[in-house]
Amino acid sequence: MSISEHPAAAPAARPAPSRVAAIVPAAGKGERLGPGVPKALRELGGLPLLVHAVRTLIAAPSVDLVVVAAPPGPEGVTRVQQLLADLPGDTRVVAGGASRQESVALALATLPADCSVVLVHDAARALTPVDLVEAVVGAVRSGAEAVIPVLPVTDTIKAVEGDLVIETVDRSRLRAVQTPQGFQRDVLAQAHAAADPYAPATDDAGLVEALSRPVRTVPGHAEAFKITTPFDLILAEAVLRRRR
Amino acid sequence: MSISEHPAAAPAARPAPSRVAAIVPAAGKGERLGPGVPKALRELGGLPLLVHAVRTLIAAPSVDLVVVAAPPGPEGVTRVQQLLADLPGDTRVVAGGASRQESVALALATLPADCSVVLVHDAARALTPVDLVEAVVGAVRSGAEAVIPVLPVTDTIKAVEGDLVIETVDRSRLRAVQTPQGFQRDVLAQAHAAADPYAPATDDAGLVEALSRPVRTVPGHAEAFKITTPFDLILAEAVLRRRR
Repeated sequence: MSISEHPAAAPAARPAPSRVAAIVPAAGKGERLGPGVPKALRELGGLPLLVHAVRTLIAAPSVDLVVVAAPPGPEGVTRVQQLLADLPGDTRVVAGGASRQESVALALATLPADCSVVLVHDAARALTPVDLVEAVVGAVRSGAEAVIPVLPVTDTIKAVEGDLVIETVDRSRLRAVQTPQGFQRDVLAQAHAAADPYAPATDDAGLVEALSRPVRTVPGHAEAFKITTPFDLILAEAVLRRRR
Repeated sequence: MSISEHPAAAPAARPAPSRVAAIVPAAGKGERLGPGVPKALRELGGLPLLVHAVRTLIAAPSVDLVVVAAPPGPEGVTRVQQLLADLPGDTRVVAGGASRQESVALALATLPADCSVVLVHDAARALTPVDLVEAVVGAVRSGAEAVIPVLPVTDTIKAVEGDLVIETVDRSRLRAVQTPQGFQRDVLAQAHAAADPYAPATDDAGLVEALSRPVRTVPGHAEAFKITTPFDLILAEAVLRRRR
């Protein structure tokens, strides 16, 4: 008896285990760290920020696959492929787009069908701890549609107009957002499909909010800071020295 | 002929040059850097944060006088006096109060009459560049009643309720506030006189805003960051190493 003849009588097929893919948009220019080199390829401790970030994702037990969106064009893809060639794990490189948002959408479209959980991670958050990646995946696995790591805002915050202060903002309900951000794949795909290419969101969770779908927070980590200025690089090098 | 007999005929007295005093509230406990030692007395590169901060203020050409509000009680005052004993310049120590706001008010009340410009500076911003101090004083000298150094907010910011995101906040008009903050002395005194001791402001500029008086911004500096956590200390040590 074949299953195709009597499908109802077949033993219930165990659902294919859903996998976790991480997308790293790395097509941006990042002029704040100086001209010339895309920001994801700036070096920290002898390795590009991107390589640090991808290594962490690969080291996270829950992550099965990493897709990097390289600078558009064959040269960008080849360059990133070479950088990642020696890393273990399943890493793939696709050509990115003109904006971060487009790069994420392009990478998302290439994911295998069995990836039902998707992380989106900034290459510039090169020192993100593995534990934070696991916490985000854990929250999505527990049922959240969208999850972002956040830190309290510790500075006093003012709203200004030009150089004039308008008001002190109540910071108790404000949170600074980090990555990786985690999503049920269908929610992220729907969010990107509905996104306005002319008014890109600053993060993927913002696109989910625009759908009026719930976004949950988990506690972020100081070491998941974004390395965008030479000053950030001083801190990153100090953190790296302490780890070694 | 004596002046007292014919005051109107006396040559116009040149107005006494107005001086600049800097107040450093250093009475706080600062448990975030660990228990036991008041936060201003935590060490960075072998010296308490407070000593770094006072040194910078003394080194600023425009600052004439530094008044530190020590932990309340004779012991706190003596301890801070000992720390500052070897520094050049005019430094004074007064007993602080139960809150940062009260400490500033107590120090303000002790300033000589000829100090018409007052800075308030966090001891924890130990690595603030002298140039930033000068920029704040310069803006007050140019006529601003209250001046704060600010940096753009570079993180994506969300407003939350519990662990649920309510909205992405427009960060383009938000600024993170640093110190030193600078004031026309009478404006700061008026602001503290009107302040609510039971709802202390997070900064002195907030008290001026509560009077509906204008507060102006000048560009802050990355190295004027507040050292409040062990992570901040890693960065501070790295910045100090580079300077040396």
